[in-house]
Amino acid sequence: MEFPVSNSSTGTSAIEAFDMVDLIHTKRDRGALSTAQIDWLIDAYTRGFVGDEQMAAMTMAIFLNGMSRDEIRALTMAMLASGERMSFEGLGKPTTDKHSTGGVGDKITLPLMPLVAVFGAAVPQLSGRGLGHTGGTLDKLESIPGWRANLTNDEMFAQLQQHGGVISAAGSGLAPADGKLYSLRDITGTVESIPLIASSIMSKKIAEGTSALVLDVKFGSGAFLKDIDRSRELARTMVELGEDAGVATSALLTNMNVPLGLAIGNANEVRESVEVLAGGGPADVVELTVALAREMLSLAGITDVDVQAALHDGRAMDKWRAVIRAQGGDPDARLPVARETHVVYAPRSGVLVEQQALPFGIGAWRLGAGRARKQDPVQHAAGIDLHAKPGDTVVAGQALFTLSADEPERFARALESVEGAWRIGDVGEPVLDGGPLIAERITR
Amino acid sequence: MEFPVSNSSTGTSAIEAFDMVDLIHTKRDRGALSTAQIDWLIDAYTRGFVGDEQMAAMTMAIFLNGMSRDEIRALTMAMLASGERMSFEGLGKPTTDKHSTGGVGDKITLPLMPLVAVFGAAVPQLSGRGLGHTGGTLDKLESIPGWRANLTNDEMFAQLQQHGGVISAAGSGLAPADGKLYSLRDITGTVESIPLIASSIMSKKIAEGTSALVLDVKFGSGAFLKDIDRSRELARTMVELGEDAGVATSALLTNMNVPLGLAIGNANEVRESVEVLAGGGPADVVELTVALAREMLSLAGITDVDVQAALHDGRAMDKWRAVIRAQGGDPDARLPVARETHVVYAPRSGVLVEQQALPFGIGAWRLGAGRARKQDPVQHAAGIDLHAKPGDTVVAGQALFTLSADEPERFARALESVEGAWRIGDVGEPVLDGGPLIAERITR
Repeated sequence: MEFPVSNSSTGTSAIEAFDMVDLIHTKRDRGALSTAQIDWLIDAYTRGFVGDEQMAAMTMAIFLNGMSRDEIRALTMAMLASGERMSFEGLGKPTTDKHSTGGVGDKITLPLMPLVAVFGAAVPQLSGRGLGHTGGTLDKLESIPGWRANLTNDEMFAQLQQHGGVISAAGSGLAPADGKLYSLRDITGTVESIPLIASSIMSKKIAEGTSALVLDVKFGSGAFLKDIDRSRELARTMVELGEDAGVATSALLTNMNVPLGLAIGNANEVRESVEVLAGGGPADVVELTVALAREMLSLAGITDVDVQAALHDGRAMDKWRAVIRAQGGDPDARLPVARETHVVYAPRSGVLVEQQALPFGIGAWRLGAGRARKQDPVQHAAGIDLHAKPGDTVVAGQALFTLSADEPERFARALESVEGAWRIGDVGEPVLDGGPLIAERITR
Repeated sequence: MEFPVSNSSTGTSAIEAFDMVDLIHTKRDRGALSTAQIDWLIDAYTRGFVGDEQMAAMTMAIFLNGMSRDEIRALTMAMLASGERMSFEGLGKPTTDKHSTGGVGDKITLPLMPLVAVFGAAVPQLSGRGLGHTGGTLDKLESIPGWRANLTNDEMFAQLQQHGGVISAAGSGLAPADGKLYSLRDITGTVESIPLIASSIMSKKIAEGTSALVLDVKFGSGAFLKDIDRSRELARTMVELGEDAGVATSALLTNMNVPLGLAIGNANEVRESVEVLAGGGPADVVELTVALAREMLSLAGITDVDVQAALHDGRAMDKWRAVIRAQGGDPDARLPVARETHVVYAPRSGVLVEQQALPFGIGAWRLGAGRARKQDPVQHAAGIDLHAKPGDTVVAGQALFTLSADEPERFARALESVEGAWRIGDVGEPVLDGGPLIAERITR
């Protein structure tokens, strides 16, 4: 016989103690957790008084039953309080940062950081590694020989002072509760939850000490959250969390139904970023880079500047080279090239009417561009280069995309993934790209 | 960026392997797990290839999203297959067993087992200890000096052959997956789930090798599942599982809004059981004991017997004494008595119109009759003795109930629990007992 009441407590922390089973019951039965309960929960979990199995049950209950705005705010603040908080106040320039919820071919941070730094803002871009199935910003940049991802806080501060831009691995001291919780969510099927995503992202971004933040929240088949309504809810939730914490925050809802740009991988994404910094590159990458740069600068109080011009007159490129060099990288070094390639050709002439982001992202991951387990290395030269974008006219026999891998046995599974993910139609047929790249702008 | 596809596998068992995160996603998103997936899940969890944190997320998803009949059947069979299966075929008498979902003051197994054995059936009553907050059948019987709960399979067989009845701890070899899963559910707030309760109970009962089984499924405020509709669903689910596995199975839905009998605890429940075996005892305990005995005998093919008579003519008592003695117990020994008592008196005259089971159960637990943690001992003399039942006329100043404990400091919290849980009304006022004791009989 079980009674739904218990006076045993798993926690021994200094703050008010609760019974973890009671808290799970509350959330399981669609109740709301108090701020004191959430503070206790995160503190007890971080210290190990609450075990992974109890937290896993709680996160599944949160996933399925949701959280109120007050609960999400309390969760974010509790995770923030679990670690250190950086400050860039002594810099003498406004700090402004960008976070993307992630997408296929999303290399925007690479051209964006130097572009914004050109105009006198400081961009303290703390990035994670690709946890899960595709590479992250740090993985992409590590394609550049010599480039170092791990800077000390002092090195970051000095680099921001001198160059206005830095891309570094976040120290483990920022929101450690989030790191622990994210690893748990990853193996327990509770990743795609708005309260958990919002609190995870915002606790780290607030801890990072930026005074302005632009969120690039993706929607569409290749996004974390497929549905634009859920992406909008996530964006609104995060904007509120940021503003409540004193960070000027806005969000763009952007289309991730098709890959961003032409390169999906690591080294090839660096190559494409450099093209954008040289005034070229795919139109969609340029459009999003410029839009996010304007948003970041505007939140930092820097307006009336010609962002686009800095891509054409070499200022953004100079900044890129300086920042890469400051982190030990050689901007002139040859980037790695894969040992093997496999080209897919157009079977007929017509218009490319479909090119789905997710299967191409999975394809690149299967080629070695992403990692299956946290400890796996990524293969920097692996990936996919697209030679046509949706809406482009193609001719029978032309190259449609190229797979690159160091191990040719990887091609079969990658090809399986992109099978049926693209289609050539007749001229005049509607193009299934899911609409404009930038769908909405969200502010408080 | 997270893709909802993964090819990593946590299992290395010989049967078809699955990815645990995929399985969690399926149940999280309201899908159905296949029999092969459930077989893998239980095997991998039992062997430790699937960890507690992943299983905790799965059980919360099952709790909140449910399972189909096919899934529940597969889960039961998978847990059954995780361990050994007993057989009493060589006994030469029909085996018949009872399982109660548990209630406050539920000592029915004690008089029931000898009563059924009187008529030539064998009752292989494998019981658990009270896991959670109140004592179980073994805890109650251990009030009897010398009584041994742990018999070998051979001892059980021999005792069934000779006396027709045994009450023993279930060996850890029966459905070990269930033992592991139950401990996990207990700390992760996923106990009260019909698919999980049904598969837990029925995998053990089928493993036990009984050929007939009667389920006493409680409903009401003191029951596991409060709601009669959910109790009925549990009962139907378990009856189907039993019948499908070749066990003749039926269920009684019984009222647990008020405590069963007058004694709540351990030694005092043994005392009350002996009164019933002597032809006395509270009417509700007698009624339920006789009804369950008839049901058990009927499923075992033994009909046309006067069950009630065996309580009055000493046959049931003789059987009790023989069986207790066979397990080392002294049926004539003095049962433990608590060091301290605290009596609550009627503040006015009238009719006892309310006496809620749950608060009295919690009160007895707080006095020491149950355990907060698995490793805690129970205090055999602790508990509550009621001196009036709902519907009884009471006179101002008469004793209403007596609390017993070895440690007097326990009285305050026990009194807190029963505060407001009983009420004396005027003559003619409706009695809030939730209706008849036996509400429904459920067969396939």
